[in-house]
Amino acid sequence: MRQFINAKETLVTEALDGLLRTAGGRLARLDGYPHIKVVVRSDWDRSRVALVSGGGSGHEPSHAGFVGRGMLTAAVCGEVFASPSVDAVLAGILAVTGKAGCLLIVKNYTGDRLNFGLAAERARAQGMRVSMVVVDDDVALPDLPQARGVAGTLFVHKIVGALAEAGADLDTLTAEAQRVISGVVSIGMSLDTCTIPGSPKEDRIAQGKAELGLGIHGEAGIEQVEFAGARDAMEKVVARLAPEIGEGPHVALLNNLGGATPLEMAVLAEELVRSRIGERIRWMVGPAPLMTSLDMKGFSVSLLPATKADEDALRAPVAPWAWPGCLPVGEIEVHELPDGLTPIKPIPSAHDGTRAILEECCRGLIAAEADLNALDAKSGDGDTGSTLATAARALTKALDRLPLADHTQLYRAIGIELSQTMGGSSGVLLAIFFAAAGDASASGATAIDALRAGLDRVQQVGGAQAGDRTLIDALEPALRALPDGLAVAAAAAREGADATARMRRARAGRASYLAEGTMLGYNDPGAEAVARLLEHLVAKGRVGG
Amino acid sequence: MRQFINAKETLVTEALDGLLRTAGGRLARLDGYPHIKVVVRSDWDRSRVALVSGGGSGHEPSHAGFVGRGMLTAAVCGEVFASPSVDAVLAGILAVTGKAGCLLIVKNYTGDRLNFGLAAERARAQGMRVSMVVVDDDVALPDLPQARGVAGTLFVHKIVGALAEAGADLDTLTAEAQRVISGVVSIGMSLDTCTIPGSPKEDRIAQGKAELGLGIHGEAGIEQVEFAGARDAMEKVVARLAPEIGEGPHVALLNNLGGATPLEMAVLAEELVRSRIGERIRWMVGPAPLMTSLDMKGFSVSLLPATKADEDALRAPVAPWAWPGCLPVGEIEVHELPDGLTPIKPIPSAHDGTRAILEECCRGLIAAEADLNALDAKSGDGDTGSTLATAARALTKALDRLPLADHTQLYRAIGIELSQTMGGSSGVLLAIFFAAAGDASASGATAIDALRAGLDRVQQVGGAQAGDRTLIDALEPALRALPDGLAVAAAAAREGADATARMRRARAGRASYLAEGTMLGYNDPGAEAVARLLEHLVAKGRVGG
Repeated sequence: MRQFINAKETLVTEALDGLLRTAGGRLARLDGYPHIKVVVRSDWDRSRVALVSGGGSGHEPSHAGFVGRGMLTAAVCGEVFASPSVDAVLAGILAVTGKAGCLLIVKNYTGDRLNFGLAAERARAQGMRVSMVVVDDDVALPDLPQARGVAGTLFVHKIVGALAEAGADLDTLTAEAQRVISGVVSIGMSLDTCTIPGSPKEDRIAQGKAELGLGIHGEAGIEQVEFAGARDAMEKVVARLAPEIGEGPHVALLNNLGGATPLEMAVLAEELVRSRIGERIRWMVGPAPLMTSLDMKGFSVSLLPATKADEDALRAPVAPWAWPGCLPVGEIEVHELPDGLTPIKPIPSAHDGTRAILEECCRGLIAAEADLNALDAKSGDGDTGSTLATAARALTKALDRLPLADHTQLYRAIGIELSQTMGGSSGVLLAIFFAAAGDASASGATAIDALRAGLDRVQQVGGAQAGDRTLIDALEPALRALPDGLAVAAAAAREGADATARMRRARAGRASYLAEGTMLGYNDPGAEAVARLLEHLVAKGRVGG
Repeated sequence: MRQFINAKETLVTEALDGLLRTAGGRLARLDGYPHIKVVVRSDWDRSRVALVSGGGSGHEPSHAGFVGRGMLTAAVCGEVFASPSVDAVLAGILAVTGKAGCLLIVKNYTGDRLNFGLAAERARAQGMRVSMVVVDDDVALPDLPQARGVAGTLFVHKIVGALAEAGADLDTLTAEAQRVISGVVSIGMSLDTCTIPGSPKEDRIAQGKAELGLGIHGEAGIEQVEFAGARDAMEKVVARLAPEIGEGPHVALLNNLGGATPLEMAVLAEELVRSRIGERIRWMVGPAPLMTSLDMKGFSVSLLPATKADEDALRAPVAPWAWPGCLPVGEIEVHELPDGLTPIKPIPSAHDGTRAILEECCRGLIAAEADLNALDAKSGDGDTGSTLATAARALTKALDRLPLADHTQLYRAIGIELSQTMGGSSGVLLAIFFAAAGDASASGATAIDALRAGLDRVQQVGGAQAGDRTLIDALEPALRALPDGLAVAAAAAREGADATARMRRARAGRASYLAEGTMLGYNDPGAEAVARLLEHLVAKGRVGG
């Protein structure tokens, strides 16, 4: 059993209780478990016509999820895929029907027709005014007079629900329901069968096939067709619907049969709108799970000719959260890309001292390439040295383009260079380091404070702290010591880098996924790079101590 | 491929277009496909702080589904499970950020942190005020400092979204986001892996096992545990969360990871409320798909200590339909069953003539038992005769209890008797026939008109018409002829019954599923029963012609 249930026998009552418990006091149930499972509006005063629907469970959010102001007054729930009993339906009718009467909205399945039908008779015998309509929107079986009732039922719930809320009388509502029923057509397609709780899954639909024209109770579709992607699937569905509808504007209801992902449903929505009937689709309900078939990986499309009154009724606000609204289908609004995406090229400027330092930094990193690669091979793919050396070579070549005389612009420009020439996380982190340093410099920070601002930002974005076995273990003490001169900073970086060899575990970056202790005795290559760089600068004597 | 997609490469852009097309004009996108996939509010005026989130796709409705008034200002969408690029994030920031600034809400994955982080730097370099928070609500890996960001992110979107809508400034929003992040804890469980488009499905979780503490990108959970039903599953999840939360009231967010059915999610909601931390759960968001992992058959629970201000922010109305609201969790409201479920027992009365007719009807049906069974065996399970005979025997025994002197009450009483002693559809249909006849009689109809009213109702509920090869083909002409006497009616019934043998196809009832022509040459057993009954009455001469 790959289902979050406790037992087949208690599934529906437990699920209904879960629904009631999380409905914020909007819903109640009758005290008839396990036989009578009826969900009612808790705010119902019987002042208007009651709308009662229901049927087997397994179609959630239908029907209990659509009980509430503006839609159903009560839902009578059977076991999974099984009609509720006459007594259960009668209990539902009696619980909500006042002088204005009650309209039963029934899907065209024999069990539902009969049980709702007899319950209606029983209620009439007690003096109640009860009408019943039968929804038969499925066009999968064109030559059967008894078409099934499927997701088009939601159009009835919503349109008649809005009219009932507004106070329409029983005869009007019955006639309106019949009008909607006579107008709506639906068809479904699925790539896999549903899993009925307590039953083994039927492996009926082969890979590469789809079933077209299937019902909502796991019964086989009217035919198996080749499946060749979303566009082709929607074309096949549209081909069945197109002959059944007129030329005027329509409302489409795009129903998730349960197991399609929102990504897939959105693609199908797009394909429906782009299909040959797309121009006739003025409004859409969904895509959303409305009338599901457990976890069936499929969808259905229902179409209703759209009168102005229907549009208004479909758009009227309702209490049930499961109703996704009915929205106009339109062109996609596309905004131009904003300015500022391409970094403004800095104006090059010369500064011999800065140039010399940068050149020496690059040489230092290039010199350390092989050693850093060897260290990285202990914990990663052995490319830290090459990554840094490649970036250093590129930076060396770029020096003529850089604003060497302007620290603020130089930090920013180095950041952009590095993010373009250095791959992976380290390139992004160094880009962030220099960009933040540039910001700080722009705000008037000293060179050292600017670099510390860069470090702070790298720590915030990267999430690593001192002691996590990263380059921060060398860079942080080095920057702290830098006011005391480069030699002191280099010594601090060396101490920090060597300390990483005693850290049992990396707590950030790729190496954090390695087993503890794997890297004991080896310096972190990032920290080692910082130490080598500073030691190189000291050795070359370019910056005084 | 069992997915409604066209191609992996175009999946996300097509799905976003489908979302935009069906969002009723509420959303727009930037003109940066395929590289830059940014969805923005179309009604945004930059007058307040912009909220930008995003990350890899495959988590729908996150994040684009939560763009709109009261939640996100923009969502930056990567490919499935892949972080968007720095350029894409920067485009999103630039497109929506005004003087009030921008807050980036990022889930704690390295790619997202780095790309959002660098984009923030770039925007800052252009003078924009940008803050960034990193959500790390997953408690699955207690000893990793870098907890993942999962469904708890929705608490940040909603609470900070409400505050931003109300005009809070960037510093306040950043601090509030950090406060929410430091309070929220989450953990997930799944029964199966997700199906990554274009990749074969990994069969990692065996039947009978569940993964606990899994992320939202298909990565393995922290451990596999025994799966023993919904209650046990929720207990295991609660056991991980309980040590992480305080004693006060909490808001729970119950997230469908994609492939669990609404039935299962409702059962899990009930189990969460009934769990040992249930009393601390004052409010609930969901159950609903909020932060999914494609079609993963799993769920996650997120918990946040509930301050009054958080409750208000969580309950504030929003535009995005995907937000299910935040509702108080409470006791289940149970209403008493209505009166009138048990039919009132009629007061028995005597009437020799009526009794004699009923007795003769019953004898007629009993006499026809074997023949009717034989006919039924041609198209069904051969029990029509026995079903009717059993009901006739029961009715004969019940005659002393019936209100024989009162037609109206008698019709109703017979209907109730038949529905209790006769199984299946035929019992319900006959019960409906007599109940409707009773109603008509109560309204003053003659006996014949009452029976015709019963027939009308049976046709409406059962959906069969004359010519559909049912008992209606005999009953309808018989009732039409009845004013001319019983003999004429019997002859009409016989003619109608015999005509069914020439009908190629049943168009209602069980026999409608048989191939055309199967029953040619055989009378419909129901129609035959009507003819036999009337012929029997004529032969016994009990009712004059």
